[in-house]
Formats: sequence, structure tokens, C-alpha cells
Amino acid sequence: MQANLVALPAEEAADFRLLCARNPVACPLLEELAPGTFVSSHAAGSDLRTDIPAYRLWRDGELVERAAPDAIAFWRADLVAFLIGCSYTFEWALEEAGLQPRHVARGSSVPMYRTNVPLAPAGRLRGHLVVSMRPYRGDEIERVRAITRPFVEAHGEPFHWGDAARIGIRDISRPDEGDAVPFEAGEEPVFWACGVTPQVVAVESKLPYVVTHEPGHMFVTDRRHEYLQTPPGRRRHLLGAAD
Amino acid sequence: MQANLVALPAEEAADFRLLCARNPVACPLLEELAPGTFVSSHAAGSDLRTDIPAYRLWRDGELVERAAPDAIAFWRADLVAFLIGCSYTFEWALEEAGLQPRHVARGSSVPMYRTNVPLAPAGRLRGHLVVSMRPYRGDEIERVRAITRPFVEAHGEPFHWGDAARIGIRDISRPDEGDAVPFEAGEEPVFWACGVTPQVVAVESKLPYVVTHEPGHMFVTDRRHEYLQTPPGRRRHLLGAAD
Repeated sequence: MQANLVALPAEEAADFRLLCARNPVACPLLEELAPGTFVSSHAAGSDLRTDIPAYRLWRDGELVERAAPDAIAFWRADLVAFLIGCSYTFEWALEEAGLQPRHVARGSSVPMYRTNVPLAPAGRLRGHLVVSMRPYRGDEIERVRAITRPFVEAHGEPFHWGDAARIGIRDISRPDEGDAVPFEAGEEPVFWACGVTPQVVAVESKLPYVVTHEPGHMFVTDRRHEYLQTPPGRRRHLLGAAD
Repeated sequence: MQANLVALPAEEAADFRLLCARNPVACPLLEELAPGTFVSSHAAGSDLRTDIPAYRLWRDGELVERAAPDAIAFWRADLVAFLIGCSYTFEWALEEAGLQPRHVARGSSVPMYRTNVPLAPAGRLRGHLVVSMRPYRGDEIERVRAITRPFVEAHGEPFHWGDAARIGIRDISRPDEGDAVPFEAGEEPVFWACGVTPQVVAVESKLPYVVTHEPGHMFVTDRRHEYLQTPPGRRRHLLGAAD
């Protein structure tokens, strides 16, 4: 199980928790840590300030630091860290079914796009949905949907497929984050909600201070596929007491 | 607490349950009944086939019966009934704060509009958000947001306010359901997600058979304001064992 990081001052934590509750497909909440703490219950001995390959810092809705190797200098005692599910989590299941995502084959980051789909606002937080994209043939899409549907902690089944313009994407060859991938004959874009969405929320809501991961550079937990395939409430034996 | 009704064949129940989970602002799920049953745990001695003032029947995505006085003839042993929260539930709180909705003052139904905001699809179900609208002055909107925010079982805080065109509403004077209301000087439209959304899902998904209430004609439960103001898990003494 891989995760997106969003850490913001405690005074915004209630709004962010509500944003996740109102937008669970974009922001499936895996964990909310106590203020100032950085050890995830999903990974023994972890440190959210250093265990992610690259970090970003946002101030007043602007990206002021990117690709920082750690977040030690950014961390504050009043920060509340949230972990949000990531679609990288289900890619093994697509691969096992012979549906390897194009970007995996190429060794690049998944392409991500801002859309014109508004989130349900929560307190001072608002924004628009970000999606990741994987090309598939039309006759593969129902299988792709069925395979990813159970992964509710990793955005679940696709949000949209086919005409990218219908969700406000003008140029599929120019993703806003990650790397473009080529299409083969008969393929169309398949879009999943993406945990980079809170970074657009940081911008649109002009949040004073937010620490996030760099898109495509995830927090990798100890949770294995068995965990995600076990219903919540029956997972206690698998690792720690996160449930 | 008031509720929207959606009853559909058991083979579509899993998809509808997932639609609610993925779109909890539009479809806050209050109850899912066992197949063929019609007594809600939210109202002692209730009968969902007769206790709503007016019903609709949809076949293959088309509205084939409207304003039916009961649903006895429509009910089938394989139907699963879902109750979805309704924004009428929080109007008393707006009234108590001196913010009576315009349509309440006029004794009419709240105006409702189809939008261009796509839902997160679930299995064979897809559609677009429906919203209800109440006019408020710009300086009242933050109070209106704060008052309705806690009512998560009744769509919570507004989805959008201000420019109706941004969510695809072309003519605010012509609602798709309910009655138009006039605006006074300085007022702008405030939109909440609406439990009529599943009726658009029935159309867009071409569902073979769906029984719903007539918009604005709600199932009124026994749950009182005290119930909604009590956190889930601490409500058991209030009525029955719905929690």
C-alpha cells in the first residue's frame, strides 16, 4: 500500500478531515496522525519527514520548495499529517491480470491531470479533482474497472474514461504532473481519482502552509496486498493495530 | 429527519451501495433494507410503499409513472429499498437562525437543478449531480455554510454558491424539479447536493426498474432534531436500534 502525504497546521485539520469524508474517491483517508508526530501506524519505525523520496512545501497557495530530499526543515510541532491512498497500490493487480500500465512498462511516473470537476468544499477548503491516466483498449476497460473497483483505499474504479475534454483535459500529451505516455491503436485514456488532488486544494484555497510529497514519489507502507484484500475489522493480525 | 427513496432490484443493490459510498455528499445513505421489505427502522410501523405522498416509477431509464399516490402496484419481492438523506432535514436549523429558506416562506417546493458535475461511477451506475437551491445574501453565506455543515446525513454544507453556470445551470428561473423562487437584492444562489441525484442516475444508466419518491415529497421519519445532533454510536436510547 502506497500513500500520499498532506501535512498542514492543526487549525486546518478538521476542515481537511471533512474534505476527505466528502470526497472519499479523491481523498481516501488512510491515517490522521496526532499533531507534530510523524510515525505512521502503517509502517513500523517510519518517519514521514524522511521516508518519502521527495517533498514539496506550499506557502499561501504557492509551491515554494520542490523535490526536497527530506522535510526535516519544513516540519513544525503544530503540523497534522494525513495519509491518502494512492493508485500505485493496485497496479500489481492490473499486472497480474496481464494489464500492465503503460508507464510501468516504460519505467516512468503515471501522467496526472487537473480537471474541471469541482470537489465538495469543506470549510475553507475547495478545489478541483486531479486524475491519473492509464491507456487501455476499449475491450479491456470493463476488466480494468472490475479489477480496481475493490481497492477503495486506492481510489477504487476509474472516475472517467474516453473523452478527456469532458472532464476539462485539453491536451492528453501534456500532463500537469508525471510523464506523458504514448497511446497504441484502439486505446483510450482511463482516468482514476488521484491523491495529488489536495495539492490543488492547497493552491485554490490559498492555504498558508502545507507539506506534501512530490507527485509520483510515494510513502511506501508495510501493508501488503493481503491487507487490502482483507475487510476492515479483520486485519488486526496482519500488522500492528491500525484498524 | 426526512429521506429520499430509491428502490431497485437486488441485482443492482451492490452497485447502488457503492455509488452512495463514492458519492456521500449527493447520496448520504441512511438505510438499506432487506430485499422485498418496506418497514424503515427510522420510523416505527412505517410502510415505504404507502407513507410517501407521491411516487415515481422508472423503466429502462424512462419515467413511466409520476405522482402515484402509493407504490403498492410497483413493489416487487426482489426490490431493495435505500433511504438517502434530504436537505429539508436542516431547514429548521436555518429558520432558527433567522435564515428561513425562500421556498419555505412561499410554501412551495425547493427548486432543484441538474448540473454538469459528474458523479464517481460505480459498476453500471453513472450520472450527474442534482442540487437544491436557496437564495441568500453574500454576507449570510458563511453562516449558512456553518449551520448546515454538521448535517452530514442531509448533504451537509453547500456544494457551490454564486455563479450557477460554473456547475452547468443555464437558467436559474427554470428548475428541473420543484418551484422557482424569486431573488431579492444582493442575493445569490446557494446550492446543496440533492437526493434526487439517483433519479438522474436511473436515466443516465438506463436502469430497468426503479421506484422513487416524487421530488419534494419526502419520507418523514420519526428521527427528531436531537437524533441528528447526537453523534452516531450514542443514539441508541433515542429510538429503536437503527445505530
